[in-house]
Amino acid sequence: MNPLLEIFSQGEELVTGQIVDTNAAWLSQQAVACGFTVTRHTAVGDKLSELVALLVDIAQRADCCICTGGLGPTSDDLTALAVAEAFDRPLTFDAKAYEQIAHFFANRHRDMPESNRKQAMLPQGAKRLDNHWGTAPGFSIKHGRCWFVFLPGVPMEMKHLFQEQVLPSWPQRYSLQPRLLITFKTFGVGESALQELINGIEIPSLVDVGFRAGTDDVHIKLLFPSDYPKQKMRALIADFSAQLGEFVFAIDGLGEETGDLVFEINKQMAARNRTLAVIETISHGLLAAKCITCDWLLSANYQQSSIKSDAGIDVMAVAEAMAYEHKKNSAADYVLVQLYTGDKDCLHNKEKSIVTYIVLLTDTGLHKINHSIAGSIQHKQNQAALWSLDLLRRYLSFTL
Amino acid sequence: MNPLLEIFSQGEELVTGQIVDTNAAWLSQQAVACGFTVTRHTAVGDKLSELVALLVDIAQRADCCICTGGLGPTSDDLTALAVAEAFDRPLTFDAKAYEQIAHFFANRHRDMPESNRKQAMLPQGAKRLDNHWGTAPGFSIKHGRCWFVFLPGVPMEMKHLFQEQVLPSWPQRYSLQPRLLITFKTFGVGESALQELINGIEIPSLVDVGFRAGTDDVHIKLLFPSDYPKQKMRALIADFSAQLGEFVFAIDGLGEETGDLVFEINKQMAARNRTLAVIETISHGLLAAKCITCDWLLSANYQQSSIKSDAGIDVMAVAEAMAYEHKKNSAADYVLVQLYTGDKDCLHNKEKSIVTYIVLLTDTGLHKINHSIAGSIQHKQNQAALWSLDLLRRYLSFTL
Repeated sequence: MNPLLEIFSQGEELVTGQIVDTNAAWLSQQAVACGFTVTRHTAVGDKLSELVALLVDIAQRADCCICTGGLGPTSDDLTALAVAEAFDRPLTFDAKAYEQIAHFFANRHRDMPESNRKQAMLPQGAKRLDNHWGTAPGFSIKHGRCWFVFLPGVPMEMKHLFQEQVLPSWPQRYSLQPRLLITFKTFGVGESALQELINGIEIPSLVDVGFRAGTDDVHIKLLFPSDYPKQKMRALIADFSAQLGEFVFAIDGLGEETGDLVFEINKQMAARNRTLAVIETISHGLLAAKCITCDWLLSANYQQSSIKSDAGIDVMAVAEAMAYEHKKNSAADYVLVQLYTGDKDCLHNKEKSIVTYIVLLTDTGLHKINHSIAGSIQHKQNQAALWSLDLLRRYLSFTL
Repeated sequence: MNPLLEIFSQGEELVTGQIVDTNAAWLSQQAVACGFTVTRHTAVGDKLSELVALLVDIAQRADCCICTGGLGPTSDDLTALAVAEAFDRPLTFDAKAYEQIAHFFANRHRDMPESNRKQAMLPQGAKRLDNHWGTAPGFSIKHGRCWFVFLPGVPMEMKHLFQEQVLPSWPQRYSLQPRLLITFKTFGVGESALQELINGIEIPSLVDVGFRAGTDDVHIKLLFPSDYPKQKMRALIADFSAQLGEFVFAIDGLGEETGDLVFEINKQMAARNRTLAVIETISHGLLAAKCITCDWLLSANYQQSSIKSDAGIDVMAVAEAMAYEHKKNSAADYVLVQLYTGDKDCLHNKEKSIVTYIVLLTDTGLHKINHSIAGSIQHKQNQAALWSLDLLRRYLSFTL
């Protein structure tokens, strides 16, 4: 039987609904993939007696508990105190934690407020989990059958601590049978259209299929039992790849590290040793912003301009001319120009569409696409940035 | 004292992290605004014994419990059965519920599957909550001190049932005193430094103070009882405003709509009828991207360039010269130039800092700021965009 795991989230902002608990879902996904059965999520506010009672309950029910939040410097951050009370482990000063917190502030040339000293007080016998991304150290402690892990509530810090200090320690603590997760990362097609594409594939009952539609991409997940025959697995993955075709920008779970669209483009631009200059309109700087890690993006200009849909202009021809012109004055190997048609109402009204025209000028010629986008102005902005990047991705992946 | 409310969500897809529980946050917001104290959220999967135990626990702890999910037609929808077991109320056939379910299918010209008959079985003594948006009727039942409300998990159906059948019944069941929430939205200062700024203010025990640190800003929240004297409330708000000073970019809860930093800048740029052109480096397009709704941003150029920290160059003087030069060729009233010092390692290494130099050229002269930023490259990018916007915000707010 799988070991049982619970998620415990602390924060008044959670129980009052000011923020949605995305940490709980993310941590559960990781735990399930590793072979835990996740039985319960609980979120409570900052009432000490509630926290204490919950910790005592969980210690009797679960084999592992991951707790997030409540490690901050302010008076409503009570997690360490609750652990001290619940498990009778008085808070003790951790000199190393204090040093790290002081270092965090020194590094940023800021004075360390006295209140941050509190974050260096850990329950007796707890193992400190160093936090290199914020001030609050995490910690872990065993009580009864349950191993408790306490992580900061800030998602970025939580994920780092989890991946670097919790995940690697699980195999020593638990007998786990991880399932194999294969993820097809797609762009340019919706969830139901993806479902239709794979309708013809016969999926063995031992394999779970799931969809996850994010803001930027849609993932199809195949979850295989740990002892599933490798050859049958490869055959099924090949079937999916064939059906999904160019929509797939990465397949995760086959050994190679994958990331988002930009991450995949990064790999290929580095391999080709090419650079890019961009003129963007509707994506409004977001194309460049998504490429913050990309040395190959030499420049990006945002211009406030759209072309009226009914102006009788060949927009693609304008974009092409702009690309050739920009190439003359740019040191970049490739030039991408993005224009759009639609007036101000089309842009702001989520019921209406704009059409974006994207041209990519490379050493092997011109590549172009146009696409109609509806939804909120932020959605239009984001989709235009992604369609532009996807044109580059398809060029790099499928053109010699 | 406020009545206590808990949220209980049922579904294997929640505890395994396939979906995020947005229902819980939404319902909590409604309940808090109405005057409940929300004490806990719990999510469990589809194990009957877990559901039964949880219902029994909640009946002893809370005055109201809103449950979502588990009302569907399939075998893993166990909520009604769990209520029957937990509170000893055998499931009974509800003819009216059956009729509505049959009507739902007839209306869509579809045959009603036999499995849907199950949804017409309600615990004895439960009050049916008609669902005009799906097949699953909700129901409510009182046990011990706690009034339980069971709603479908589909957000659209849940919200309709809540707003039309739960919300209107609360004032008859509970003595509720909606509370007043005042939120100070700040930028440019951390949570613990804010705490220190307000340390000298004597906060009446009736007023709850909370902090919420987001990626872009930090909020301080004051929650007042509904009958709190208006004059004392105004005095406390004034004390906070005085202590927090220019860090506050908006105060929410005083009647005027507020938003994020860009929202507040929008108000003032519209009032002044001015336009802006931007040259950004370290924020890499993100400054422009954040301003997607802003007509006053005429253009933004991202350039791949940083200045070596040890090059002996007066970076601020360079930025100033660039601003004057850019102004000559731009139709914009204001020009903002953002530069930074630091090499590639400083940019990518989260332990190292870059220094950003920001110049704003306006009709009343030059305004400038420099700021050291550490953290991940994405954090540096975001903070540089925000510091640039904040310079504009401070100019608009505090300069005639």
